[in-house]
Amino acid sequence: MSELERVLEAVDGGMPEALGRLFELLKIDSISTDPAYKESCLNAANWLVDELKNIGFEAARHDTPGHPMVVGHQKGTNKDAPHLLFYGHYDVQPVDPLELWNTPPFEPAIEETPAGKVIRGRGAADDKGQLMTFVEACRYWRQVTGSLPANVSLFFEGEEESGSPSLIPFLEENKQQLKADLALVCDTGMWDSNTPTISTMLRGMVGEEVTITGPSLDLHSGMYGGPAINPIRVLNRILADLHDDNGQITLPGFYDGVPELSDSIKQQWSSLNHDGQAFLESVGLSEPAGEKGYSVLEQIWARPTCDVNGISGGYTGEGFKTVLPSTATAKVSFRLVGDQDPDAIQKAFYQHVRDRLPPDCSVSFKTKDGSKATVMQVDSVPFRQAQRALSDEWENDAVYAGCGGSIPVVGHIKTILEMDSLLVGFGLDDDAIHSPNEKYSLKSFHKGIRSWVRILDALSKNQSNI
Amino acid sequence: MSELERVLEAVDGGMPEALGRLFELLKIDSISTDPAYKESCLNAANWLVDELKNIGFEAARHDTPGHPMVVGHQKGTNKDAPHLLFYGHYDVQPVDPLELWNTPPFEPAIEETPAGKVIRGRGAADDKGQLMTFVEACRYWRQVTGSLPANVSLFFEGEEESGSPSLIPFLEENKQQLKADLALVCDTGMWDSNTPTISTMLRGMVGEEVTITGPSLDLHSGMYGGPAINPIRVLNRILADLHDDNGQITLPGFYDGVPELSDSIKQQWSSLNHDGQAFLESVGLSEPAGEKGYSVLEQIWARPTCDVNGISGGYTGEGFKTVLPSTATAKVSFRLVGDQDPDAIQKAFYQHVRDRLPPDCSVSFKTKDGSKATVMQVDSVPFRQAQRALSDEWENDAVYAGCGGSIPVVGHIKTILEMDSLLVGFGLDDDAIHSPNEKYSLKSFHKGIRSWVRILDALSKNQSNI
Repeated sequence: MSELERVLEAVDGGMPEALGRLFELLKIDSISTDPAYKESCLNAANWLVDELKNIGFEAARHDTPGHPMVVGHQKGTNKDAPHLLFYGHYDVQPVDPLELWNTPPFEPAIEETPAGKVIRGRGAADDKGQLMTFVEACRYWRQVTGSLPANVSLFFEGEEESGSPSLIPFLEENKQQLKADLALVCDTGMWDSNTPTISTMLRGMVGEEVTITGPSLDLHSGMYGGPAINPIRVLNRILADLHDDNGQITLPGFYDGVPELSDSIKQQWSSLNHDGQAFLESVGLSEPAGEKGYSVLEQIWARPTCDVNGISGGYTGEGFKTVLPSTATAKVSFRLVGDQDPDAIQKAFYQHVRDRLPPDCSVSFKTKDGSKATVMQVDSVPFRQAQRALSDEWENDAVYAGCGGSIPVVGHIKTILEMDSLLVGFGLDDDAIHSPNEKYSLKSFHKGIRSWVRILDALSKNQSNI
Repeated sequence: MSELERVLEAVDGGMPEALGRLFELLKIDSISTDPAYKESCLNAANWLVDELKNIGFEAARHDTPGHPMVVGHQKGTNKDAPHLLFYGHYDVQPVDPLELWNTPPFEPAIEETPAGKVIRGRGAADDKGQLMTFVEACRYWRQVTGSLPANVSLFFEGEEESGSPSLIPFLEENKQQLKADLALVCDTGMWDSNTPTISTMLRGMVGEEVTITGPSLDLHSGMYGGPAINPIRVLNRILADLHDDNGQITLPGFYDGVPELSDSIKQQWSSLNHDGQAFLESVGLSEPAGEKGYSVLEQIWARPTCDVNGISGGYTGEGFKTVLPSTATAKVSFRLVGDQDPDAIQKAFYQHVRDRLPPDCSVSFKTKDGSKATVMQVDSVPFRQAQRALSDEWENDAVYAGCGGSIPVVGHIKTILEMDSLLVGFGLDDDAIHSPNEKYSLKSFHKGIRSWVRILDALSKNQSNI
């Protein structure tokens, strides 16, 4: 039995313990966006440091003005093997609306579903379950062979779900210890439950919270309705004007840098036979609502968007209150593709808002870090090796795919650490990752660990500086 | 010393006790719109029943499917004096945003301000302080003279701030015991702190909560942004389309029944020398935002409006969450004037929403009772008597004025009990009645009681069936 086969066998035998460890991490309610959970984030970081130390990593918590980073290093047997830097994040999304969860979000459990067993709980898929696939792969390599097949560093962030305010300074200050030959990121999904996927495109992001202030205090709409400006109405107008009747975004210059798809990519994507209709039907929809003339897949992977992710103003409780509020707020995000410039789009958005600001209204903005879209070079040796390793593990061969989401760290790894990233993840479309009842397929967890075992083996066959 | 003078003197001497009683009522957090405060509403009703009994009323609590009504009756000395029905409401508005209150909303206190002493607390002006001006007037009439000068019934509602769902059936079922010669309502304001006011116009109201549902669950904007419809965006478009660029409401037929102001009313209002600029500046504004071509006063008293009183959807907590929500909700209200038909406007609003509903979206409505505007007949004997009594009490003569608010009960008293209403109130523009830090001027409370003492005296000089 080869070394690789023995490690895979150990993974199979160790699943109950691996699940036990994942559940410990899932029980920590590390919601990074809400300051009330600061200590939970600290606890999750500490838990990871201990875990890495148990597997022979030199590991430490690095405190930041926000939530801490966790970094670990371990040399492999073969000094000439490449140095790999793995990235994951231990923070999770908020859980509201809590009443829609069928089980408490931080009491993880295995559930039988028609599609097989799943791990239910906040963070199961995004990203605790995913990052633990890699940690467990390292554990069993070391347990079976006494060491890792490559030089491995790990880097866990606790602010991915809240705009990563500490990420750029941390990468810049720790360039030396984080610089490696290739980054591995496990925060993406599979094409379907049998088809492993390497993500080769990520949309970028501009996120802005905009608050309109009108009267200096909340007013009674009987006493003031008419002459007093209503900031909700002002905000409605501003947001409604962001799209034209065809669903195109109206900001001047917004589409600068948006490439038309090459025929070869169109062909590749078309060969995936994506069922846009079924994709929409699974969430209660029937018609693609994005730009006309693009398939559902193209709308998600290759077209930019603008969406309102949250809005609030006035009285929003039970019943009615005839208030003219002093302020109204919206959280707006843009998903970017190709060469779109986040700074230019932020500027255009500010101008759009200011152009529509009536007398007596003021505006304030809170920025979530912007990031450009990422397009990977897929014709390199490690990409082909990873594709082969994944194809060996799963029912179907691995595919290259786009991704509608934004993983800003990939851009920062490129610009600050000057490294390419290999994005492999085992999430599924119905994981409900920012929604109530998040889950991670048990098969994803199990075969995910096995996949990383294989990828570590494959990549270790290279000389360093791949 | 006349009977009237002796009663007024007793009022002056009894102010500490009257304030003590008002504070007891203000301490009860009777927020009718929120089911969590159901028992508090019951407590407020019971407190009023006890209070009325103490002053010699036959009083009882009448339970309804919502919050209870309180009714009391007391015959006066002179059987030929008119029968007066006083209306007030003991429920109050919600207190959020609580963090903007400088003192706890249900711990009333006397505060020194540059404009004199005020009673601070939720409900101080709307409407507990106001209704107690009448109750205290009755108390001192009886205390000094042994009885009331007229036949008095009182009727207190506990659902005025939550759409009065039980009001119409209750009025219909209790016509017999509530029918009187004239209704007195104390829920309006003064022209200024020296000028008592009889309100002769009230705007009507249509209130609707509209909820748009798109996807069947909250989605991740990375995975679905583009092809998935966003209900916040749909709602923004619907709400933005309610007004044109001139601030006119776009619903077809909306202005049917809106009268142009007569020259005589225009003249009368103009003689009030309303300082629209100062009115707006007191709330941080400088330009009237309503329909062009109308003064601030006309925009409030004589023109209809449409406002969004609340909006919510998606993630509204701290930080950012890139969610595409399943639903978005707004509370929309229309203020009506003249002969505008609430039913027709509700229908036009529904049509407006449905016309803008894209595929895959559904809508649901929750209705707050609609009411027509009210225009009083001001050339009657009791109106002139009340005007004289008020002018005797205050620095300036009483004026007739419009009112931008809606007091639906006045319309129901007219149509169901077939009675006219005399609207006298002592609120001031800066009472912050639906806002944090609500207050009622101590002078309003004191002179308010004295005003009702005088009005009771004046009206009792009439034969019944005035």
